[in-house]
Amino acid sequence: MLRKMGLGLAATVWLAGPGSGEPVSTFRLDNGMDIVVIEDHRAPVVVQMVWYRIGSADEPPGRSGIAHFLEHLMFKATDDMAAGAFSDAVSAQGGKDNAFTSFDYTAYHQRVAADRLDLLMRMEADRMRDLVLTEEDVTTERQVILEERNQRTDSSPGALLNEQVAAAQYLNHPYGVPVIGWRHEMAALSRQDALEFYRANYAPNNAVLVVAGDVDPAAVLALAEKYYGPVAPSDLIRPRIRPQEPPQLAERRLVMSDARVSEPYMMRSYLASERNPGDQRTAAALVLLAEVLGGSPTTAVLPRALQFDAQVAVFSQAFYNPTTVDPDTFNFAVLPQPGVSLTEAEAALDTVLARFLDTGIDPADFARIKTRIRADEVYGRDNVQSLAQDYGAALAVGLSVADVQAWPDLLQAVAADEVMAAARKVLNRNNAVTAWLTAPEGVLP
Amino acid sequence: MLRKMGLGLAATVWLAGPGSGEPVSTFRLDNGMDIVVIEDHRAPVVVQMVWYRIGSADEPPGRSGIAHFLEHLMFKATDDMAAGAFSDAVSAQGGKDNAFTSFDYTAYHQRVAADRLDLLMRMEADRMRDLVLTEEDVTTERQVILEERNQRTDSSPGALLNEQVAAAQYLNHPYGVPVIGWRHEMAALSRQDALEFYRANYAPNNAVLVVAGDVDPAAVLALAEKYYGPVAPSDLIRPRIRPQEPPQLAERRLVMSDARVSEPYMMRSYLASERNPGDQRTAAALVLLAEVLGGSPTTAVLPRALQFDAQVAVFSQAFYNPTTVDPDTFNFAVLPQPGVSLTEAEAALDTVLARFLDTGIDPADFARIKTRIRADEVYGRDNVQSLAQDYGAALAVGLSVADVQAWPDLLQAVAADEVMAAARKVLNRNNAVTAWLTAPEGVLP
Repeated sequence: MLRKMGLGLAATVWLAGPGSGEPVSTFRLDNGMDIVVIEDHRAPVVVQMVWYRIGSADEPPGRSGIAHFLEHLMFKATDDMAAGAFSDAVSAQGGKDNAFTSFDYTAYHQRVAADRLDLLMRMEADRMRDLVLTEEDVTTERQVILEERNQRTDSSPGALLNEQVAAAQYLNHPYGVPVIGWRHEMAALSRQDALEFYRANYAPNNAVLVVAGDVDPAAVLALAEKYYGPVAPSDLIRPRIRPQEPPQLAERRLVMSDARVSEPYMMRSYLASERNPGDQRTAAALVLLAEVLGGSPTTAVLPRALQFDAQVAVFSQAFYNPTTVDPDTFNFAVLPQPGVSLTEAEAALDTVLARFLDTGIDPADFARIKTRIRADEVYGRDNVQSLAQDYGAALAVGLSVADVQAWPDLLQAVAADEVMAAARKVLNRNNAVTAWLTAPEGVLP
Repeated sequence: MLRKMGLGLAATVWLAGPGSGEPVSTFRLDNGMDIVVIEDHRAPVVVQMVWYRIGSADEPPGRSGIAHFLEHLMFKATDDMAAGAFSDAVSAQGGKDNAFTSFDYTAYHQRVAADRLDLLMRMEADRMRDLVLTEEDVTTERQVILEERNQRTDSSPGALLNEQVAAAQYLNHPYGVPVIGWRHEMAALSRQDALEFYRANYAPNNAVLVVAGDVDPAAVLALAEKYYGPVAPSDLIRPRIRPQEPPQLAERRLVMSDARVSEPYMMRSYLASERNPGDQRTAAALVLLAEVLGGSPTTAVLPRALQFDAQVAVFSQAFYNPTTVDPDTFNFAVLPQPGVSLTEAEAALDTVLARFLDTGIDPADFARIKTRIRADEVYGRDNVQSLAQDYGAALAVGLSVADVQAWPDLLQAVAADEVMAAARKVLNRNNAVTAWLTAPEGVLP
């Protein structure tokens, strides 16, 4: 999964999380593999996810895209299975499987009838260390990822702008490099690059197994010991210490002009802290801030002010993803009404933000948002895949099960003045990138 | 030597180079060490420079400053010499020694009486592989480089702006990281980091020895074989393939505000191609372009238009350094007169550039500049240190002696229409960063 950001793609607003309601069991195998079992007996299905604590931000310099490329190549042959056999086997059971890559993790997931978990584990354990890649696999699949980049990025001015903004946002940290990779580097990725990345990073002591659904934890553990237990750990796993940001001393501004743009918009990203183990309160405040400012298309502060009161925008949003290893961004986007310039749209955004910092949060709004977050959380518990996703992502970025379970109550506990303090801290223009996407007639500000 | 850029430091405009006039001999030792001997018998002195083909752009991610830190540590003890003994020995001979680090190379140089070259070679060969570092050396010298950063960078708003501009200029390439290093990374550099960088990169097959002065080439070779010949080559030397830039799709703009700024100015950098082996003509055209636009403080296009005609600036310049491994930048800076805003200064710059692209180069100007470049070149041949510098830098970035010797005639051969073609290509705002340095009352454009 490529990180979603900005207009044209759904925002990854983190709305709600798993509570302490669901029965969750955790184990660790002798080879270092972490296991989370989430019981949900309402339907006879099971989801298996294996999360590797490795993502695009861990790639060697100049090899951007290798994490995502390897994700594709993981569906090729192993010593025991032919290329494509994994997905065929899942499909033959009426199941589904897929995978995704982010800055911080790469995950493989399947959903089948609950009594076929052994098949999933056998196959996933097999490809954890025994992938076999031919030059032809690499050549063919490299065309696939280049075509994926064509479709997702190069054909979309908004996606291209997101890349340029991220590169300007990060002066030093690898979050400035796109998950899918820079095209010229993707085109040069080799079989050796893929195998080196695989051998160094795919191992039980770098993985989190999440099993959710109609299962018994003891039975899951027994199966995991049978299939994953014999997989040798790697001694190449290192702490994920990436280059961190120096002080950012000046806002960066970009204007990207593209003939394909029919609706100009402006966006702004601010460097923002993330959830940290045992220290999630600031991130919770920022989640609430994003909700207050832009979480609802009708009642949040930005849409109300920009779309309904001033009528300068047709769309506005705030979004923030707290579940990352290193500081991510807090983001705004404003799509102006026809006839309203980007200068006016940006000024209107800044006016609303200044007024918000001055007047604070409406208590009724705040109570309503917390109620909605709680409701979303309860609703989210009904979706076993979404629960597995929440636990897996959190554990893959270094959070604990306790952090995951504390999170919903933390969202309820954060006070309005904490949200305002977080807002004052994060809305620092020196840490910001402001970008305009225009058609070619647009001029520089 | 830290890369010089912008106001407050002398610009590294490459004015003229060594011609084919001086007697130059080249050799290669069996262990891969390249040797260049430049004879100049007018004074009984000799300059030795050892250039390592390793610089800050070759540092591991997160270890910025290690190349420069190691340069400092190279003056500590070896197995045969006490800390400081190298410089003491040179000084005792009435000589001078120093070192510098750039993006692309690290060089050590001394100047002594011609009959003491053997001493220099013995000591330089000794520290090529036999450096001994204590934890105390590292702790002490780390304070020195942090203090150097304080003085050169952190105490200078212009130097800080240069760092922010470079980080915004490069979306992917390590030229976006400062040579001296980001402070937070410098503070964490360890003895192990230094030794790993040293052992991997300091070896005869990664070095160029330049000896210039009152010497006989055969005698220099004999000495080099005696002292450097026994030094084992390293099998860790790799081609310098660094992450390259993706397409830059939008100009980046920065406004940095600092209370220490008394004279606001604006600068703009454009990504620009560099000298390449056998292919230096575009770089030569860009050198001429920098000369035409901003090479002279009185007669060049920018000062004439901005300082004397429009009287909007007190200072303006264009500068470009062509001797790099990867694309560097073509730069402008304009310091407005009191009462002239940065908006007006920037608009005046753009007006002059647009007019220049329209009207082209004045033929008399062009002839005068070529004459001056030729005169500078002839003058430069009188300075043995400067000749050694020119050969050493060129060879350290991968150029050949033939490229060095072809360069002066190439500068004369480039036609005005080639300069204009290079100007049209390089002045692409999508590849540019425009930055304003202001006092805190300054507002965003």
